[in-house]
Amino acid sequence: MRLSRYFLPVMREAPAEAEIVSHKLMLRAGMIQQVSAGIYDWLPLGLAVLKRVERIVREEMNAAGALEILMPTIQPADLWRESERYEAYGKEMLRIKDRHERDMLYGPTNEENVTDIFRRHVRSYRQLPLNLYHIQWKFRDEIRPRFGVMRGREFLMKDAYSFDLDYEGARRAYDNMFVAYLRTFKRMGLTAIPMQAETGPIGGNMSHEFQILASTGESAVFYDAAFEEVDFDAPDLDIERLKALYAATDDMHDPAKCPVPADRLRTGRGIEVGHIFYFGTKYSAKMGANVMGPDGTETPVEMGSYGIGVSRLVGALIEAFHDEKGIVWPEAVAPYRVALVNLRPDDEACRALAEDLYGRLRAMHVDVLLDDTEERAGAKFATMDLIGIPWQVTIGPRGVKEDRVELKERRTGERHDLSPALLVERFAP
Amino acid sequence: MRLSRYFLPVMREAPAEAEIVSHKLMLRAGMIQQVSAGIYDWLPLGLAVLKRVERIVREEMNAAGALEILMPTIQPADLWRESERYEAYGKEMLRIKDRHERDMLYGPTNEENVTDIFRRHVRSYRQLPLNLYHIQWKFRDEIRPRFGVMRGREFLMKDAYSFDLDYEGARRAYDNMFVAYLRTFKRMGLTAIPMQAETGPIGGNMSHEFQILASTGESAVFYDAAFEEVDFDAPDLDIERLKALYAATDDMHDPAKCPVPADRLRTGRGIEVGHIFYFGTKYSAKMGANVMGPDGTETPVEMGSYGIGVSRLVGALIEAFHDEKGIVWPEAVAPYRVALVNLRPDDEACRALAEDLYGRLRAMHVDVLLDDTEERAGAKFATMDLIGIPWQVTIGPRGVKEDRVELKERRTGERHDLSPALLVERFAP
Repeated sequence: MRLSRYFLPVMREAPAEAEIVSHKLMLRAGMIQQVSAGIYDWLPLGLAVLKRVERIVREEMNAAGALEILMPTIQPADLWRESERYEAYGKEMLRIKDRHERDMLYGPTNEENVTDIFRRHVRSYRQLPLNLYHIQWKFRDEIRPRFGVMRGREFLMKDAYSFDLDYEGARRAYDNMFVAYLRTFKRMGLTAIPMQAETGPIGGNMSHEFQILASTGESAVFYDAAFEEVDFDAPDLDIERLKALYAATDDMHDPAKCPVPADRLRTGRGIEVGHIFYFGTKYSAKMGANVMGPDGTETPVEMGSYGIGVSRLVGALIEAFHDEKGIVWPEAVAPYRVALVNLRPDDEACRALAEDLYGRLRAMHVDVLLDDTEERAGAKFATMDLIGIPWQVTIGPRGVKEDRVELKERRTGERHDLSPALLVERFAP
Repeated sequence: MRLSRYFLPVMREAPAEAEIVSHKLMLRAGMIQQVSAGIYDWLPLGLAVLKRVERIVREEMNAAGALEILMPTIQPADLWRESERYEAYGKEMLRIKDRHERDMLYGPTNEENVTDIFRRHVRSYRQLPLNLYHIQWKFRDEIRPRFGVMRGREFLMKDAYSFDLDYEGARRAYDNMFVAYLRTFKRMGLTAIPMQAETGPIGGNMSHEFQILASTGESAVFYDAAFEEVDFDAPDLDIERLKALYAATDDMHDPAKCPVPADRLRTGRGIEVGHIFYFGTKYSAKMGANVMGPDGTETPVEMGSYGIGVSRLVGALIEAFHDEKGIVWPEAVAPYRVALVNLRPDDEACRALAEDLYGRLRAMHVDVLLDDTEERAGAKFATMDLIGIPWQVTIGPRGVKEDRVELKERRTGERHDLSPALLVERFAP
């Protein structure tokens, strides 16, 4: 992408209403803008990151054997009356009447909808196990939306739902998602700590929430140092051991009762980005989603649900990866991997080299942002640091004469000179 | 994908409520199911096609220089009061009150929202031309939703919005989209006929709608045979000539006044899948979206909007491509390119060959659906024909002994035997 043709409305100062660093930086970097309280436009740079996060979540769900579907945003109230949640849900549910005065709602979650899909089509244990997920916008009418996309009203969520014949199957499905979640967050460069959680309004009796570590996190977390050494991709990964490792938020942590020796106890701050639940037959029993077992008897199907806050993760990533100059994207989620900063687009030699590098990197499918604008050098560097591109290449008249460019790593600030040919090699697949 | 692990609830008979062939086939092929009138779940097969259509639309928009953003589904009524459309829009707009009793709505279109983005960030002609698009779910509360995804209430639409300093710029932006649309539909295997259209409630004075040809189309269309010969990718494409070619729906067509000689006049049936409008300063003037020209004077920005019905296209494609056995997907939008039908998964030699081919095709990034189920042969063939996979490979015990499989092309029904090695070569990139 050429910056001269891009839409990147960066700001020097964040609007006063932004309270936390991710919200400030997303506004300053021109990633989002507010349309109404807790409702945002995603501008090109923000959408690019959102799509990268979404893609990693999707790939890991597919790798775990879950099947992608798409349920609508608007649901009929009648489905929620079957589960007895329509009245119970409270004011966070956005209730709507359509032109025929039918009660509808904007889905805050999809247990009822997915259970309805299941009961219409699945009859036999031979069609199990089944895990259906979707990545869809949800709405929760928070009384006080804030913190940008971290607690918005309209937000993008991945929610998966598992269906099994019995508890053993449901536990396998739960464990499968447990590991998929750890892999998902790790691919984004995040350290995620799973912790046993209250099951809350969704109900059930086996639940973990996933907190990613960030110095600016919303709650203090305590966890066993063993988490830092786990290889989630190991074929012999011991999930039971992993689930048993100690981890707790500060409201649950009691130093007197903590089973982890002090030298192995780590502390940090966490942001919740995922939550998984086993809830058995809570919905299937009420909604008549039964399945026939091998012995011919019909029982309500065993279910679990598995959520990841996709749009929330964009904010959480910034909370985890930023410095005083701006965002520091991990490569896996960066909107562009390389920035080519041409200091002198009016200089023919600089222009030619910048265009050549741009073409060659793109030919190798490297995502490149070429700054071909007439801005002054200081502003160009500040923008690239603000928007957090991992690798920044500076092209200037002196370097061009000496057949070299400067490569800077955003994370470490390390710079070194190298020839354009070596630069291209550096990013070859 | 292995069919044994897929979720493909096919049906022999379509539910009685389905009136048109695409709706019947989408239900029978397990692509969608209705949640409420005009609101659908997209099951895995349907979603796979929807994503392919969406991707082609996105790639062609990007190629045309448009920038992708994402505006929310829920908008504040105040934006629409500025354009004076809030009261005017009628009952098709889904109006909502949030918990604080603020008037909100589910966006049926996004002129106001995008104009708001523009006015907050763009001040100078130097930031133009600009074309922002998004692919987002919309809601129009149709009094009588029907025809499945062809006239749903919640539907996926690509809408782009161009911003230019003056009429000449706006016309270039319009022409750019005009050609991008023809390319987009052609990539899906469709013949699209652009026809001058009434501008309707969105307003303005330059507008074309794009009708794709399908024997079961909703309206009769008449057009100049020259459309069938145009190469939309030609560098010297004459857009003015193309825009001047005769095309009309039957309510506009007057044989007495038709300028096309009879031997060049074609007739067919069409389905509207896209609509483009130039509407000048209709929104920018009311909403204060001004831009400074080179002479220092401020004027309301010139705008156009460009819509494609993405979810509607899935239905339209089926209307254009089906036969008595089911759907006949063009390769570009097929959910899977190749189906491997193993007639005898219980036979070790058949199983081994099927697995080998499955692995090798996947290694070449060919999208393959492997039927590894215990169904009888007739049902397997019927399902593959119903869901319309372009290339169907049959693996059976006799063929395995003779080192051959049968390849069938869904579109023509042509079959021939070939060795597994040649089959792999056939689909090599």
